[in-house]
This record gives sequence, structure tokens and C-alpha cells, in this order.
Amino acid sequence: MGRLRASFSALGADAILVSHLPSIRYLCGFSGSAGLLLVDGARATFFTDSRYTFQAREEVFAARVQIAKKGILRAVGEVLRSRRRLRVAYSPARMAVAEKHALEAGAGSSIRWVADGNAVEKLRAIKDAGELSAIREAAVLISEVFSGLVPAIRPGVSELELAADLEREIKRGGGSGASFETIVAAGARSAWAHARPTAKLLEKSELVVFDQGAIIRGYCSDMTRTVHVGRASAKARSLYQAVLEAQQAAKQAIRPGVRAGDVDQAARRTLKAFKLDKYFTHSTGHGLGLEVHEMPRLGKNEETILRQGMILTVEPGVYIEDFGGIRIEDDVVVTAKGCDDLTTAPREFLEL
Amino acid sequence: MGRLRASFSALGADAILVSHLPSIRYLCGFSGSAGLLLVDGARATFFTDSRYTFQAREEVFAARVQIAKKGILRAVGEVLRSRRRLRVAYSPARMAVAEKHALEAGAGSSIRWVADGNAVEKLRAIKDAGELSAIREAAVLISEVFSGLVPAIRPGVSELELAADLEREIKRGGGSGASFETIVAAGARSAWAHARPTAKLLEKSELVVFDQGAIIRGYCSDMTRTVHVGRASAKARSLYQAVLEAQQAAKQAIRPGVRAGDVDQAARRTLKAFKLDKYFTHSTGHGLGLEVHEMPRLGKNEETILRQGMILTVEPGVYIEDFGGIRIEDDVVVTAKGCDDLTTAPREFLEL
Repeated sequence: MGRLRASFSALGADAILVSHLPSIRYLCGFSGSAGLLLVDGARATFFTDSRYTFQAREEVFAARVQIAKKGILRAVGEVLRSRRRLRVAYSPARMAVAEKHALEAGAGSSIRWVADGNAVEKLRAIKDAGELSAIREAAVLISEVFSGLVPAIRPGVSELELAADLEREIKRGGGSGASFETIVAAGARSAWAHARPTAKLLEKSELVVFDQGAIIRGYCSDMTRTVHVGRASAKARSLYQAVLEAQQAAKQAIRPGVRAGDVDQAARRTLKAFKLDKYFTHSTGHGLGLEVHEMPRLGKNEETILRQGMILTVEPGVYIEDFGGIRIEDDVVVTAKGCDDLTTAPREFLEL
Repeated sequence: MGRLRASFSALGADAILVSHLPSIRYLCGFSGSAGLLLVDGARATFFTDSRYTFQAREEVFAARVQIAKKGILRAVGEVLRSRRRLRVAYSPARMAVAEKHALEAGAGSSIRWVADGNAVEKLRAIKDAGELSAIREAAVLISEVFSGLVPAIRPGVSELELAADLEREIKRGGGSGASFETIVAAGARSAWAHARPTAKLLEKSELVVFDQGAIIRGYCSDMTRTVHVGRASAKARSLYQAVLEAQQAAKQAIRPGVRAGDVDQAARRTLKAFKLDKYFTHSTGHGLGLEVHEMPRLGKNEETILRQGMILTVEPGVYIEDFGGIRIEDDVVVTAKGCDDLTTAPREFLEL
């Protein structure tokens, strides 16, 4: 909370109302799905509802817990109404229009609302040693779970069966679950960057994209591997090689002080040399932590400066309709001079 | 779209901008995670980004697809700017303050924004035959998956292992996945209404709450069963009986024309007769469909009138700190004269 309070003066705020649940978890430990955290210069109060009475009591640190009997927004509004002329920072990207209206109605017109400039998300972008250790464990776990699944990748098994087995092994391996719905996408569907697994059976001579992550102590990993069922064509191999080189170029561009957009550019430039840049339809990566997508985004022209302790995915891909898609994704931590891989699964093109 | 357009005049709108993803899926089939759907009197346009080019082409019906190269909000803003003096309905509960600001800036001041009164969510509350059939299949699937898991519920197995096996069997049984993160909560943790599974091992003489659901063709089921590891105490048995009677009372109160709040009251009144109402800390149920929580809510004083074709959960529970929790939840469909169970798993208290 100390680092957060230090941001108040730059924001022109006396307090911050945190509405984004992962940021609430980061600041006070609550992992449930309903709550608001109000932090002012002197104290922090976490508001939730009666479903979470026991959970809040067990989880919440560094904040007083208030159980709102008649709605969380109303309880916060009443507290703010008693604090005249407070300047309250909030996140316009993380609060619905209706919630804001309810808070304004409850708090009254003497409260001044100011945008929080993603203050908590910026704090969250730099991980401490405990966070790094959780994400590293999650990255190793998903690497091992995927490697354990490789012998089962063969013609006749369905995307859904592979996803089911993979998610089960995450939990059996000590993860609290998958960090997002596992993607297993075979054949033409591998060209859908965000395909959900279906009952489709794997066939000989298909690309299969696996995008998966594990959660350890609340922290996410995120890894993609693309394999080929049977021997791959020269075209598939050369596409794979291009994506792998683009990923290496992006990793080599990562170090403190670099613009996020330059890392994206490094991957894009490599794919352009292979005339594949037009098939690379998303950004190169993103921050990783309590959420599987968080700051910073490694996208075109992103101005965020990378700093030591950031944890990023690096995941270029190419998606060619009626042919298939290839993506290779690792998690890395920004070190003093560059970056280190957290993901341990091999990156060679597997022809199974 | 026809029923939606019929609501325009009551809303005082010429068009609706749908931002809530399940509502977008309901109206035009898109199941991805980024998009906006603009419906006016004559046509419908679905805006998404380049990650979803192929998926949108394959999934979207009844709307033209526009791939937004420079951001979805910007593309929608530009289209609206060309349509002067349009009255556009939107959902204040489903749009972030920042998104609304971006749309207003892009669309210009000649667009009039009006609240949509949850128009799409109200349509979604009444299910058609195809939706009922999907939810029925999902309810049967989760019933069978849970019943198949019962022999594995024994001392020494962890909450996480049980949740992992359960979610795997959902996918192997033809579901596209779990409709929410499966809850397996044993011992004192069973008193957390929304506990996540942990590495805790089941012990002799504990209550264990299982809350789980499956997705079939996009539609969710939601079912809770509470079992006892070993022989239960008289107290646990009498609590279970009270919750079961409360559930039956709520089901008996369900029929077209009844207020949602009266169904909640029926459950609450039964628990009050057992002096347990203070331990019932959530509402009695909720609508179920493309989302696992949707309209209507069966909560205290809810004025929504139940109608034939609504699908609801009925899930009273009691949560006693340091003792444990008991919840029993079924899915039902509102029929012409009452309601029918969709959930098929037995409701007797299992002492395992």
C-alpha cells in the first residue's frame, strides 16, 4: 500500500477506490469475485458481501473488512459521503458506467473523481521475488505437463480429450487450475489464434497449436507449442523456423530501458524478412502475473519502457487460412541486462 | 434480432450497441472475447479485431462482420459519427467508463445515448427449445459426471484432485468444458460459499460441498451436492434435511406469474422454521443460459415475474463457521404450471 499511496500526489488524489479484482487481490489478498478496496492516506477498507464473510476474514491483510449488507456500491457510497471533498482516484477502464453512476449518487457531489492512470496495474507490472518464484513454478509446471502429454498427441484423439487431460494434470501437478481455457486447435482451426477445443479428432499431417497455462499461488504461466502430426511439409517447417527466429529476435531485444513496441518490432521485422509479417495478426506478447494478460503489452508502437522484474510472454505466430497456424510462446523475466526464460519446454518442431 | 428491434420504440432508441459478449453470442453467434455488435432498424454489424478474422467469418450469422484494424471502439465510433442524430441504446452495466468515453469521443455529440434496460438480457431469460435442450444435456452430463465421481470421494484424496477429475470427465463426456471453476470444499472450508479447491486432503467426518457445471453448445448447467465423509452427526443430518426442505419449498413456489422474490422467500421461510435463516447468506438462485449467472435473480424482494421457458437454479444453503456448509442446487425449467427438474443426480444425503 505504501507504493500505492506514494502515487496519490501525482494523481492529484487523496484516496483510490480499487475495483479491478486482481488488483484488489494484489493489494489485500482477497481472491473472491465481488469487492471494492478503498485506500486513503491513513487506512484501507475492503468492502464485500455476505457470501464472502469467512473468506475475507481468512484472506484479507492490510485492510479492514466491511461486509456490505445492502450492496457493496451503496456501502462505499455511504462511507465516501461522510468524507467531504475527498479526491478519489478510480480506474475508468475497470468500472462499469452503471457502477460509477451508483457511486456518484451514493457519495454525493462533494467527492471529486479522478482517473487513476492504471496506478495499481503499473505497480503490478514489476514483480517481487515471491511473485517471480510463483510464476517460475507455474511456467515449469505447464512445461512439464505439456511434455508429459506429447506421447498422447496422435491421430484419432480429440482436441477436447487432450485439453481435458492437460487441465487435469495441471491440478494433479499442484497448480490450482488452468490460467485460461486451454487451446488445442488442429488442422485448419490452428489458424484461429483463440480457438476453443472441440470434438474434432486429430488427423495425420496436421498442425496442432497448444496454448495453455497453470496457476500457482494465484500467479499465471502462459505457453504455446505447435506440433505436427506426422511428417511436416517443407512449407510447415520453414514457417516454424521463421516463427522461432522471430521469437528469438524479440527475446534478444528485451532488456531494461527498451520500449515495448521495439520488442514487437523485432519479431515483426524477422517475419517480414520471410514475407510472413502480414500473417502475424496479434501483438508479440504481454505482461503476466495474477492475470494472464496484464501490463505491459508488447504491441506495435507501445511506448512503455521495460524494467527489470517485469514478466512477459513472447509469442509471435503466423496464421494462414486453410493451411494452419504456428505460434511459439515462452514466459521471460526482464533481468538487469536482458531476459531469462521461465518456460522450460523444448522449442524444436515436434513431428509426431 | 426481430424481438430485439421490437424493443427499440419502448427504449426510445433507433439502434442498440451490444457490448456484453454472451449477449453478442446470443444474437449473432460469435463466441470470441472481443467485439461489439451494432443493430439498427435495418442491419446489424459485428465489429471485432484481426485475431478473430477467421473465427468471425465462420461463426457469425445475421450480422455483417467488420474487422477493426485500429481498435474496435474507434471503428464503432467512426460508423456512428456518419449516422447523425441516432439514438443508441447501450448497457451501462456492461460497458466500462473508459469505453463509453472513447465511443462518445469517436461518435461525436450528435449521437444520443440511452440506457438499454437490459433489453438483450431480458430476451435471453426465456429459452427456446434448442436452448432448453442444450441446458438439459448439460444438466444431465454434470449429474452423471458427479455420480461417477462419488466412489472416489474418500479420506486422503485432495479437493484439487477431485476437481481435476471432475473437469476432465466433463470434457470427455462431450461438454466443451466446466461452466465455472469447480468448487470442492471440505471441512470448515465448506462454509465458504465460493471456495476454490485446494490441496487439502479430505478427512473422516467432514462435509464436502461440490458445486460444478458443464457447458454444452455454449449453454451452462450448475449443480451443487453436499456429501459427508464417514457417518454424519445428527446435527449435520438435520441441517441437510432443512436445506433439502427449503429447496423443495422454493421449487414448489415456482410457476409462471410468481415474483422471483417469493421463490426466495419460500426457501428462507422454511429455513427460518428451523432457525437457520441467518446462516443462509446468499440468494436462492439465478437464471442460467449462455452465462452461469443471468437474469432473473431469485433474491430477496426481486420483482421480476417468472415466465414459462425461464431456466433457474434453486440452491439454498447454510454456512456455519467452524462447522461447515451445506448447499443443494438443481436446475429447473419453468413450465406452464410449475417447474421441471433438469438435474438428475440424486439428492439424498450421501454418507461415504
